[in-house]
Amino acid sequence: MELIVQKYGGTSVKDAERVMNVARRITDVYKSGKNIVVAVSAQGDTTDDLIEKAKEINPNASKREMDMLLATGEQISIALLAMAIEKLGYPVISLTGWQAGFHTDRKHSNARIKTIDTERIQAELDRRRIVIVAGFQGINRYDDITTLGRGGSDTSAVALAAALHADVCEIYTDVDGVYTADPRIVKDAYKLDDISYDEMLELASLGANVLHNRSVEMAKKYNVKLCVRSSLNNNEGTYVKEVKQVEKMLVRGVARDNDVARIALCGVEDTPGKAFTVFSLLAKSGISVDLIIQSIGNNGKKDISFTVTEEDLPMTLKLLEENKDVINANEVKSTTDVSKVSIVGAGMVNNAGVAAKMFEALYDAHININMIATSEIKISVLVDRKDAERAVVAIHDKFLK
Amino acid sequence: MELIVQKYGGTSVKDAERVMNVARRITDVYKSGKNIVVAVSAQGDTTDDLIEKAKEINPNASKREMDMLLATGEQISIALLAMAIEKLGYPVISLTGWQAGFHTDRKHSNARIKTIDTERIQAELDRRRIVIVAGFQGINRYDDITTLGRGGSDTSAVALAAALHADVCEIYTDVDGVYTADPRIVKDAYKLDDISYDEMLELASLGANVLHNRSVEMAKKYNVKLCVRSSLNNNEGTYVKEVKQVEKMLVRGVARDNDVARIALCGVEDTPGKAFTVFSLLAKSGISVDLIIQSIGNNGKKDISFTVTEEDLPMTLKLLEENKDVINANEVKSTTDVSKVSIVGAGMVNNAGVAAKMFEALYDAHININMIATSEIKISVLVDRKDAERAVVAIHDKFLK
Repeated sequence: MELIVQKYGGTSVKDAERVMNVARRITDVYKSGKNIVVAVSAQGDTTDDLIEKAKEINPNASKREMDMLLATGEQISIALLAMAIEKLGYPVISLTGWQAGFHTDRKHSNARIKTIDTERIQAELDRRRIVIVAGFQGINRYDDITTLGRGGSDTSAVALAAALHADVCEIYTDVDGVYTADPRIVKDAYKLDDISYDEMLELASLGANVLHNRSVEMAKKYNVKLCVRSSLNNNEGTYVKEVKQVEKMLVRGVARDNDVARIALCGVEDTPGKAFTVFSLLAKSGISVDLIIQSIGNNGKKDISFTVTEEDLPMTLKLLEENKDVINANEVKSTTDVSKVSIVGAGMVNNAGVAAKMFEALYDAHININMIATSEIKISVLVDRKDAERAVVAIHDKFLK
Repeated sequence: MELIVQKYGGTSVKDAERVMNVARRITDVYKSGKNIVVAVSAQGDTTDDLIEKAKEINPNASKREMDMLLATGEQISIALLAMAIEKLGYPVISLTGWQAGFHTDRKHSNARIKTIDTERIQAELDRRRIVIVAGFQGINRYDDITTLGRGGSDTSAVALAAALHADVCEIYTDVDGVYTADPRIVKDAYKLDDISYDEMLELASLGANVLHNRSVEMAKKYNVKLCVRSSLNNNEGTYVKEVKQVEKMLVRGVARDNDVARIALCGVEDTPGKAFTVFSLLAKSGISVDLIIQSIGNNGKKDISFTVTEEDLPMTLKLLEENKDVINANEVKSTTDVSKVSIVGAGMVNNAGVAAKMFEALYDAHININMIATSEIKISVLVDRKDAERAVVAIHDKFLK
């Protein structure tokens, strides 16, 4: 029997009306003779409200107790959604993370799924019940409740789809699918029918904000066919799947990411291992460095520039300060007044003209490029934040209009 | 090491300030070198709010999903209370019902505790942690979440005290202890220092509203020393324990219960087995009958009167109507305009003068008695509801002033 896994986010179940709407979507699938398992997030602002409650009592609460608290959000959602489906007259059962067999590692607030013991879910499906599972949560080896961190419910859904060998995993959100650019910025942006895992990974990490990277990585690893679509209409959505490499180079989308801070180490001694020293220092503290450029040495000195997320900037500056004797730079400069603008498309590496075309678009729009980075399927440039939206429009016009 | 089990109700943890207050009480015990396990209810109106949310979606939701929903209330409380204790700098861990090992039968919304697997709690106590347990909840043999029904958190606490062989089980509420009568009705009412299980059972079932019967029954069965006290002051409270029978008859308290409906079957045929027919009919539907009187037969006819709870009245009348051919009464009358007023005290059975003294008090106050029932440790009368408070005052004055 065909099996569909669906995931509904917090806005899709934010109130009684939306919950009933989702219940109808689910029972429509069930009625068509398919089995269905649904992962649900906490309703609307529930998680924020719970965090507020916790902060009032203890702003430095342990992650273990925060997980205990936050896991109630999804538990409320699954119970209410199951009740809505009961009202429509269909057999249904809700399961918390631990009841659904989600076993994670011990990292509270950002746990990784280790295994899903699908016995309970399978037994419920065998009885032809609709199964509603709390997203975002599991238990660790001590039977303590863990949560999966950002994008956790997406990851729960993909993990379920992989473990249950589902035919498709539908991620419901408040947008119609994956667009060539943010439609709020580019009025000509259009929805893609499909996109490869790698392209989606680049877009997700570049700030397209549709799917979390972890879920796409997992979908790629287990070859789960993803579909991103809206819970508010019946439009087709975008399929994320293994797309065969095509000869023709295709730019699939333009993304902008404002969560960027640039740091420049000026006048660093030009000796082997200097860059290694800096970046291994950051890596040890769990700070991911994105774009890196290093000037050609001059008078025995060079400049090293790189970007981190805004969140990591204070810690990065602190580490550089603490180790200034080792790094020995003339000056450390930083700014968050930058954005990363990227184009993504499989096959880009084989086409030398793409980068030139992108730079031309920016030149025509009088936008200065700070840094450049390329990979097999993307080209990113760092621009001043004030220029970012114009850059997206200019590039989209050039490649995708 | 001495072990204390405490239970805090919803009003004791209704907001951040109250949660911190409870946290300080708990850590005071811990600091004194004792081990401590705490059962907590859902905050203030949380349970009502959740029920409201459910009703908006499905007023006839299954009990299984209601339990899934309501169990989040206590889970929120335990996480917040643990965070408050963390803030005070003490080692603490919160446990849901299933994590704490509460195994119940399958009766959703009104489950009975079967066993508590104390391994986890014991391990945490061995590490000298304060253990916070979600009251009111457990899991059944299918790993589904169950709730214990009315007074469930009291029962959770007593069950913990029994399973862990605690030295005392302190039930914190918003009153100072068990009083000789409701202080809102009788201004001379005073707090009792101690009371026997049997007396407390009678008082609980008679509407004293301090402890739920199930918890007192369990405390008696496992000989758990209970203490009822206020979470808002340091007054001593009332101990509920095995009290040695004293020679002198003692009236310990006067209780009033408004949750009473009286039914009269008039002109029933005076043949053997008629009463049995009626009451076995009700018993089969789970309806508990309290006071019963049967008139002496006259002209081959007799009257049977009895009381049930207000909640059970509609079902009782329905059953009597459905079986009217078998019962064959001339008339069925019912009213909820009555109250049960009772005096409770061990040794009452040995003192013939008590009943007479009670009736005298009512006679002096010009209060008419509808029905009378006596047991070893209590005497109950049914009076018109309008007279009930006066009756309590009159009887309290007579015996306890």
